Amino acid sequence: MDTVYLDNAATTQMRDEVIFRMTEIMKISFGNPSSTHSYGRQSKSIIETCRKSIASHFKVSASEIVFTSGGTEADNLILRSAVRDLGVQEIITSKIEHHAILHTVEVLEKEFGINVKYVNIKPDGHIDYAHFEQLLNSKSKQLLNSKSKQLVSLMHINNEIGNKLDITKVADLCKRNKALFHSDTVQSVGHYQIDLENIPVDFIAASAHKFHGPKGVGFAFIRKNSGIKGSIFGGEQERGYRAGTEAIHNIVGLDEALKLSYKNLETERSSILDIKTYFIKKLQDVFPEVAFNGSCTDLENSTYTLINVCLPIAAEKASLLQFQLDLKGIACSKGSACQSGSSQNSHVLSQILNDEHLMRPSVRFSFSIFNTRADVDYVIEVLKEFV
Amino acid sequence: MDTVYLDNAATTQMRDEVIFRMTEIMKISFGNPSSTHSYGRQSKSIIETCRKSIASHFKVSASEIVFTSGGTEADNLILRSAVRDLGVQEIITSKIEHHAILHTVEVLEKEFGINVKYVNIKPDGHIDYAHFEQLLNSKSKQLLNSKSKQLVSLMHINNEIGNKLDITKVADLCKRNKALFHSDTVQSVGHYQIDLENIPVDFIAASAHKFHGPKGVGFAFIRKNSGIKGSIFGGEQERGYRAGTEAIHNIVGLDEALKLSYKNLETERSSILDIKTYFIKKLQDVFPEVAFNGSCTDLENSTYTLINVCLPIAAEKASLLQFQLDLKGIACSKGSACQSGSSQNSHVLSQILNDEHLMRPSVRFSFSIFNTRADVDYVIEVLKEFV
Repeated sequence: MDTVYLDNAATTQMRDEVIFRMTEIMKISFGNPSSTHSYGRQSKSIIETCRKSIASHFKVSASEIVFTSGGTEADNLILRSAVRDLGVQEIITSKIEHHAILHTVEVLEKEFGINVKYVNIKPDGHIDYAHFEQLLNSKSKQLLNSKSKQLVSLMHINNEIGNKLDITKVADLCKRNKALFHSDTVQSVGHYQIDLENIPVDFIAASAHKFHGPKGVGFAFIRKNSGIKGSIFGGEQERGYRAGTEAIHNIVGLDEALKLSYKNLETERSSILDIKTYFIKKLQDVFPEVAFNGSCTDLENSTYTLINVCLPIAAEKASLLQFQLDLKGIACSKGSACQSGSSQNSHVLSQILNDEHLMRPSVRFSFSIFNTRADVDYVIEVLKEFV
Repeated sequence: MDTVYLDNAATTQMRDEVIFRMTEIMKISFGNPSSTHSYGRQSKSIIETCRKSIASHFKVSASEIVFTSGGTEADNLILRSAVRDLGVQEIITSKIEHHAILHTVEVLEKEFGINVKYVNIKPDGHIDYAHFEQLLNSKSKQLLNSKSKQLVSLMHINNEIGNKLDITKVADLCKRNKALFHSDTVQSVGHYQIDLENIPVDFIAASAHKFHGPKGVGFAFIRKNSGIKGSIFGGEQERGYRAGTEAIHNIVGLDEALKLSYKNLETERSSILDIKTYFIKKLQDVFPEVAFNGSCTDLENSTYTLINVCLPIAAEKASLLQFQLDLKGIACSKGSACQSGSSQNSHVLSQILNDEHLMRPSVRFSFSIFNTRADVDYVIEVLKEFV
């Protein structure tokens, strides 16, 4: 059976070069980076070389990169530390953020009694800037009278609908209003150049397995002198931000994957974009009633890596769609991978779709360098049989 | 130059079989375990098979094993959740615990205002049971009047001096006094059989890289119906205990390393024990004034994997010792690896040694299956030149 993997926003196939480098490191460099002897120093040096190389892609200092076990941990570290260490009393976020943000914010709301405000999302999936500015201005009374701060947490690229936030505009607005700004960049790191020298964002979070690296590793960018103290305690690893022996092989895999992503960025972007535009056109040709969720057909303001399609299928047949696609070897996602285990509707789509569209099945197809136009043709054939 | 690695309590060389299986998994199974399609199900099934196999070594249910990024994260998860979710108001621990415990407890003390009591440690490195029972009995007044609980956190095997706690005795005392019991078993998992069906401990923490597995992965054992809720929030991975896409290759490496450790346990234990006893004898023969820290010469009550030696060297020469050993290609540790990056004295030794012995250099040599008697002979030769 043909199998076609179109769920690259959930996770990606590792590049051979990444696996090769990780395997090599596991064989030759097992010292504990905290040990001062030669084995330890070798490991330490490998990690610090990776840190420098990673930092250089974003034009920041190596000391501003903190390795974590992934994007979720990085988001948790940043949000929790900001509330506990920086006097954040109000978080402005949106209802279409990843659960790593939403659930963490809910916990912090309970634990620390902070205010949480959600910026309005327009039907096209973009934030309502007028409302956002209102929220930034209308600080709660308790905030006006103290040294406590606002923290904005808005993701760069939405993992379900692919909308791209104008991260520079948001960062500037935050700066002007003296709010801290964290952006979950899990879907954009490795896919877009992010120049942190020129974008005044305070924190970002990234995950290697979204750009052909290993699972279980990512990083938090924490701008110098932020005052953040970390959230896992123990040894002095990661300059105190994050205790626990470093996963050298994973860090090396993250570095290698990022390096290759940025090295090949233009070529790979255009080949992936070709698949996306081809897919959109094919869908429109074959199913004139197809609709696209969010702004994914707006190539300027959405990522080139995914589309989220609302298919013209009756509700009775809808429940079978996922099953049918799977049976035909097509891997894609209803909402995001994180929900696809449960039968819940997507928390993102439920914010932006009207009831009629919510009743129809929506599918996210997300692409990588390993996809071809032939994959699209195959999916279209399968959908034809079904729709 | 010969190099001799005798710092296995800091971290271990990975077994070839572990690297091989991890590499294979990275090549063939990249699906996100949360995805419901075939790629996701394959990954999910691999993880759940590992979980079952790991649980079986400890005679517990698979659902009681929660994968983490390592021992430190597991300790943090357990301690923080116990305080936040279970109403723990008092923690009883000791001053010779790993920093993953001590520093986390300090943070929780500040954040949640809990009481922390430290059980006395005897000069041989073992806990003072009479004092321990006193602490269990003399609950603070606030505890007597409420539903709040005591939590005991005492490590199974001390990473610096190798003392082995009578974990069954402590667990029974805790049970009798209705205190929860967590044991950091990072130095014992993979080296000792731990039958959790018969030891009423509530929580343990383990780390794969201490038994020839990969860095960046470990697990928490959380006994059924504990009420613990986790400490990293986001997706529903690990049944809600620990959000973040699972590092499949690392989990597979953990499983493989643990399987091999327990499969070969008796043979490997006796070969490592032979190295330890040979080393002790050689040291005593060559340096009659040598002293051993903790109970590491008591083979019943210390681990077979390490010795902690106080060398008869004058203070002036002591500072050169570590440098000299490193120069000769010998990797060992002054205190534990976690401290060896800094110039601080060991927090463990400072609890148990008198001033005279504290002035002298102490070295931890820790062994694995990859060591031989020839390694010991080489170290003795180098030490002879120096002492």
